[in-house]
Amino acid sequence: MASKPSIPKGTRDFSPVEVSKRNYIIAIMRTHFENYGYQPIETPSFENSDTLMGKYGEEGDRLIFKILNSGDFFDEKLEFNKKLLLKLNNIIGQSTKELLRLFTEKLEKNQTGFLFKNEIDENFTKDIIEKNIYYFELKTRNLKLVSVEDKKIILKLFNDEILTYVKIIKSFLVSYDFDKSNLYNEVVENNSFERLINDIVTSIFYKNQRNIKFPNVIAPLISEKALRYDLTVPFARYVVQHQSEIEFPFKRYQIQPVWRADRPQKGRFREFYQCDADVVGSTSLWQEVELVQLYDAVFAELGLHGVTIKINNRKILSGIAEVIGASDKLIDFTVALDKLDKIGEEGVKKEMLEKGISEEALVKVQPLFNFTGTIQEKIAKLSVLLSSSEEGMKGVEELRFICDNVSKLGLQKATLDLDVTLARGLNYYTGAIFEVAAPEGVAMGSIGGGGRYDDLTGIFGLPNMSGVGISFGLDRIYLVLDELGLFPETVTTATKVMFLNFGETQSFEVMQTIQKLRVANIKSEMYPDAAKIDKQFKYAERRGIPFVVKEISNGLFTLKNIISGEQVQVDFSTLSTTLK
Amino acid sequence: MASKPSIPKGTRDFSPVEVSKRNYIIAIMRTHFENYGYQPIETPSFENSDTLMGKYGEEGDRLIFKILNSGDFFDEKLEFNKKLLLKLNNIIGQSTKELLRLFTEKLEKNQTGFLFKNEIDENFTKDIIEKNIYYFELKTRNLKLVSVEDKKIILKLFNDEILTYVKIIKSFLVSYDFDKSNLYNEVVENNSFERLINDIVTSIFYKNQRNIKFPNVIAPLISEKALRYDLTVPFARYVVQHQSEIEFPFKRYQIQPVWRADRPQKGRFREFYQCDADVVGSTSLWQEVELVQLYDAVFAELGLHGVTIKINNRKILSGIAEVIGASDKLIDFTVALDKLDKIGEEGVKKEMLEKGISEEALVKVQPLFNFTGTIQEKIAKLSVLLSSSEEGMKGVEELRFICDNVSKLGLQKATLDLDVTLARGLNYYTGAIFEVAAPEGVAMGSIGGGGRYDDLTGIFGLPNMSGVGISFGLDRIYLVLDELGLFPETVTTATKVMFLNFGETQSFEVMQTIQKLRVANIKSEMYPDAAKIDKQFKYAERRGIPFVVKEISNGLFTLKNIISGEQVQVDFSTLSTTLK
Repeated sequence: MASKPSIPKGTRDFSPVEVSKRNYIIAIMRTHFENYGYQPIETPSFENSDTLMGKYGEEGDRLIFKILNSGDFFDEKLEFNKKLLLKLNNIIGQSTKELLRLFTEKLEKNQTGFLFKNEIDENFTKDIIEKNIYYFELKTRNLKLVSVEDKKIILKLFNDEILTYVKIIKSFLVSYDFDKSNLYNEVVENNSFERLINDIVTSIFYKNQRNIKFPNVIAPLISEKALRYDLTVPFARYVVQHQSEIEFPFKRYQIQPVWRADRPQKGRFREFYQCDADVVGSTSLWQEVELVQLYDAVFAELGLHGVTIKINNRKILSGIAEVIGASDKLIDFTVALDKLDKIGEEGVKKEMLEKGISEEALVKVQPLFNFTGTIQEKIAKLSVLLSSSEEGMKGVEELRFICDNVSKLGLQKATLDLDVTLARGLNYYTGAIFEVAAPEGVAMGSIGGGGRYDDLTGIFGLPNMSGVGISFGLDRIYLVLDELGLFPETVTTATKVMFLNFGETQSFEVMQTIQKLRVANIKSEMYPDAAKIDKQFKYAERRGIPFVVKEISNGLFTLKNIISGEQVQVDFSTLSTTLK
Repeated sequence: MASKPSIPKGTRDFSPVEVSKRNYIIAIMRTHFENYGYQPIETPSFENSDTLMGKYGEEGDRLIFKILNSGDFFDEKLEFNKKLLLKLNNIIGQSTKELLRLFTEKLEKNQTGFLFKNEIDENFTKDIIEKNIYYFELKTRNLKLVSVEDKKIILKLFNDEILTYVKIIKSFLVSYDFDKSNLYNEVVENNSFERLINDIVTSIFYKNQRNIKFPNVIAPLISEKALRYDLTVPFARYVVQHQSEIEFPFKRYQIQPVWRADRPQKGRFREFYQCDADVVGSTSLWQEVELVQLYDAVFAELGLHGVTIKINNRKILSGIAEVIGASDKLIDFTVALDKLDKIGEEGVKKEMLEKGISEEALVKVQPLFNFTGTIQEKIAKLSVLLSSSEEGMKGVEELRFICDNVSKLGLQKATLDLDVTLARGLNYYTGAIFEVAAPEGVAMGSIGGGGRYDDLTGIFGLPNMSGVGISFGLDRIYLVLDELGLFPETVTTATKVMFLNFGETQSFEVMQTIQKLRVANIKSEMYPDAAKIDKQFKYAERRGIPFVVKEISNGLFTLKNIISGEQVQVDFSTLSTTLK
């Protein structure tokens, strides 16, 4: 290999110093996670695709790294073709039946003809589009679905796509000598094939027969596994799979890498660690109280003072939506409100009006435009504002419980603040929402976040399991600590003392000494080769090794402090204590 | 999702107890790695395919997990087809030129006709087969390449495969409307296509035009990344990539998971940890001495006594091969000799003769059939046996240095033994070879291994870097410790004390107390809900929490030891000391 080797974009090598610093942060997290009763679990790096796909929305699905089936997929092309053929055969078989049923139904109702033409306008509702039909979303991703004209464009594309699939399938069939089979003659040669596939796809997408996902025919045949995308879904899967072995409430922490096929950029990687603590199976708000304390404990021990733990509650947000009479505009509202600092009250109001929020609504939520004061004052304002919303008031009570108790128990170094614009994880959180901001003056996004989701494990068939958890952003915490110079000097794993190598005659005595030092847990080594003394000294310097033993003579060691230049002659006992 | 979720075969979830036990082992390894001057690095979970492919032999390539390109490969089928077409086009273009050149050359020499027929027997040498031509090895994997008859069988298979590729390519071309293009008409319609491809493949494989790897056309288009297969190749890549930042000799350790698409079975997983310590850039044999001490130090602290560290040297094996006059029969010889315990001297000799090792050779190596005694005695025997082999004698000297120094420095709990049948990593090790056997009586294969390879980084363009290293088998060490009951009781991360929950009025006082205990690093928690007392007690019991605080009254705590049933009333200070 001629060119210098490299690593995939978005991934990183970690040098000894970096690993040591990362492990320092992780060790502190572990200690506090465990003090708080959280227990470690680990899950496999890859999960069955079924476990992950469809759990993170369309964008998430796209960003999941898929793994090719078994190591030797490409060596078994023929086997693959056989499998594909069987699958296609199966689909054609099933769908022909379904198609016949549909046609029969239509005939009975005196409706005939090409399914497309008659049904599209009836069934082509926004609802169908939104219901996450994989294939359909694919084609509509970049199109605004508004006008009848647009719908026609989509249908055209859709149709083209079908024809392409037909061609691909046909060609696969040919490549497997399928053109000599009976089925091929039946459906392909008499020209009913295009029509058949067209109708299959139509019946699948427009009749909601989602158990047959035509465009996913090939994918599962060559990829059935995918790399972990976050720690929450694998945790939910773990809880359901091991429910009989687990005592609930179950407090677990997990520190493992996740992978996302995101476009790499500064501070965004394709492989990065998540550090999560979650409890599942309890609705007690004491968990939220504890999680705030846990954030505080970790950041305090890291020496990172001035962190702000922002809290909000999904029920507050829902309450606001209720009050402004537009639940569907909640996100627009929150996004706009979040810009208050930047564009001022008038700017925010202008944006809200543009998004279709009414003048009356703005009057009602006027207090939010001047939402300052202590947490108690903010809660008081909210309980007036949301008095007409049952859900909103429930949110207020939850916030009050959490904030009051956190305040009475006291935090070491962090500050808790109520931020009604905090809308992180709006799609899944149902109660508390957390986000941690780095100390003021450090240009860094959030360094942690979390919240409560009432139905954590429902997706895997275990309903009504409430979960609440927080996550620490290891990479960003690392950057903040580095920027503020908060890593202790002792964090590196560097060797404490190096013995010069004067050749084989003295080496044995050196190794004997080193052996004794190591038993005393003093990191020590001998320069392995009898190189020039200068070179050996430089090596120690560059490695950051603070002490060098220059000579051993009559049981006395000439110990040089490389930094100060100081040099002493000591016996073993003094050597050992000096280095300890 | 109706069915209970599961994880991919060959992968594992780790429960809290399992994670704690694994971390206990890892922490001990880390401590000793660092005491010995090894520094941690970490590399990405996936590497560029180029970095890994071709480094582990044909079988290894097959077992590497490949990752599909970018998250949305399957959403871009048309784009993919375009790329494929371009690539094919390119190959056809290049190869047509090459083909023309070949034909011209032949015409000039008055040779015409189908390339296969005339060239095969000339060029079909063992050399070509062995030179790791991916495609060719694939087809010959299960065939012994001996007779002319066999060669014909291979050619037949080879030809069939070409025809299959021709079909697949044709069908792809059709699927992309390529059948309407000029090139298609030129080459496909006038029936020259099959011949063309055939000739392309012939020219590629028989003319050694390896820059065009026809059978790998599709793979790189959909997969350019692969999961780490071991830690050695990524380490070599790391060293070359970061050579300017590294001080050599570079002692690094690395504890990370690796993935292999192996058939899962008892004790063999598709995801497992490797724990490696290597030093690169020094040929000093003191490294080997240290690595033996390092094994001993780790196993001693794990309480695992009676481990045998087996050592051998590649040069000894080469020397034996030289002495028996059959370097190509080295593996047969070693495999047979390794059966001495099971089938006895006569059995071994019979097998060796069958493998083509001569009677005279057996006479020469007779001492190996009674190869017992101390290491010193074994070395003495070897230096007689190998006196005529320069390389063999070099191996003897290396072994002597390592074993003498290990013996003089002394091991804590392990035993060093010389085992001439040890042939681990015969393909890459060039000096010392190590393998660690679990204590007698424990049915477990090797729990560690390693060796020296003179040219670790040559594959990445940095020649003459000698490396030596060892690996610890985390999973097997875990099983051995578990079987022998060697995990300390304190290893689990379980909570030390749980406070009963009597409802909101008392909860605050409980949380205040817990807060103070946690500051003192005492793992403590409150049962989060005011459930029935019975349920709360059972929860503590099942979680293995040893202490429960039943009541707080006037600053006194009623503390119950769940195991002994003993119950005391204590103040906070006594509570804290009792739990410490």
